[in-house]
Amino acid sequence: MRQRRKFIVELTNLSCKTFLAELAGNAPAPGGGGAAALVGAAGAALGNMVGSLTVGKKKYAAVEADILALNERSTALRKRLEGLVQADAEAFLPLAAAYKLPKETPEQQAHKAAVLEEALNRACAVPLEIMAACCEGITLAEEYGAKGSVLALSDAGCAALFCKAALQAAGLNVMVNTRLMADKARAAALNAEAAALLADFVPKADRVYEQLTQQEG
Amino acid sequence: MRQRRKFIVELTNLSCKTFLAELAGNAPAPGGGGAAALVGAAGAALGNMVGSLTVGKKKYAAVEADILALNERSTALRKRLEGLVQADAEAFLPLAAAYKLPKETPEQQAHKAAVLEEALNRACAVPLEIMAACCEGITLAEEYGAKGSVLALSDAGCAALFCKAALQAAGLNVMVNTRLMADKARAAALNAEAAALLADFVPKADRVYEQLTQQEG
Repeated sequence: MRQRRKFIVELTNLSCKTFLAELAGNAPAPGGGGAAALVGAAGAALGNMVGSLTVGKKKYAAVEADILALNERSTALRKRLEGLVQADAEAFLPLAAAYKLPKETPEQQAHKAAVLEEALNRACAVPLEIMAACCEGITLAEEYGAKGSVLALSDAGCAALFCKAALQAAGLNVMVNTRLMADKARAAALNAEAAALLADFVPKADRVYEQLTQQEG
Repeated sequence: MRQRRKFIVELTNLSCKTFLAELAGNAPAPGGGGAAALVGAAGAALGNMVGSLTVGKKKYAAVEADILALNERSTALRKRLEGLVQADAEAFLPLAAAYKLPKETPEQQAHKAAVLEEALNRACAVPLEIMAACCEGITLAEEYGAKGSVLALSDAGCAALFCKAALQAAGLNVMVNTRLMADKARAAALNAEAAALLADFVPKADRVYEQLTQQEG
């Protein structure tokens, strides 16, 4: 029950300092998945900043409607990723509990295996959602880089970098859970889903970053 | 004076949600540099988490002293990066003020150029400090990956990913400022300093990540 109470507090309501101190400690959550969601949210926010610095400027009147639409998507994405910080922590609790189940009798072993498998499934679902959200963040960073104020282009680059790192970090969190699954076909399918997102969106994020470093160079 | 008052609040004392909302808006700070420091701090914290999950375990008694030393370095690094979130915001204010100086008379133009050059110098110094701190974070992630509990290795990978993205993002923030400097020799020297850190530590972070994905695969 003590663990459960901990998560009545919504993690993103903690101060940045307190969140980071919690991350550094040995509590079961927040962990790498929740940190990935937070870093992805920082990426979504930085894209949005490019948009905020673009709207209302005469020079960008022609793209104003596009930028406003991107800003709406960015705000929704940031809130979705903030929610996933919490979801990742909550998915970890049943997994931590499952590991502690006794396995002395054959019945206990079968029960533990079934509970663990279900908890692993749930613990994979959240990082996969974080990955999908970070892919959207990379797409938004690319559009902001193409249409946003040139004064804020480096921030579009930072947005792409953060969403890419968060995508890869969430991918590691899918893999640590699939590795332990008894259902190898399901594990392979989830790994393939993660690998497909990485294969499409890591190079896309790299292109956004490289275009900017060339412009700056 | 209104801008100044804003930063009496230490940014990392804001809730994660509020910090991210500020980042998304059109306020001059926090921006890409401050976000880089925060993401780097998340990387430092995740390394520390690997250490926190390793100390006190019989299996890792042989490396206990090493891990405790790494944990101390990680805690100091996290606090240093938290301070750099604030320092980046404070370095941006004189730059924003310099851009607004009048440039109608030759005297005004000369004054503005001198003030701007000084502000650009200061605005470069902070992201360079963020870069150096993120390089330390990558070194720590590598050591945690080599010595820490195998149960937390994916978190060492996440730590390397976040510190790398923050290193590159801070690098973009060096370049946007050097590009505007009148003293081209100084700009080139600062760019070379940033490029050298990227050349050494991006591949190092990639190796930490790749070793982990191979272990998981």
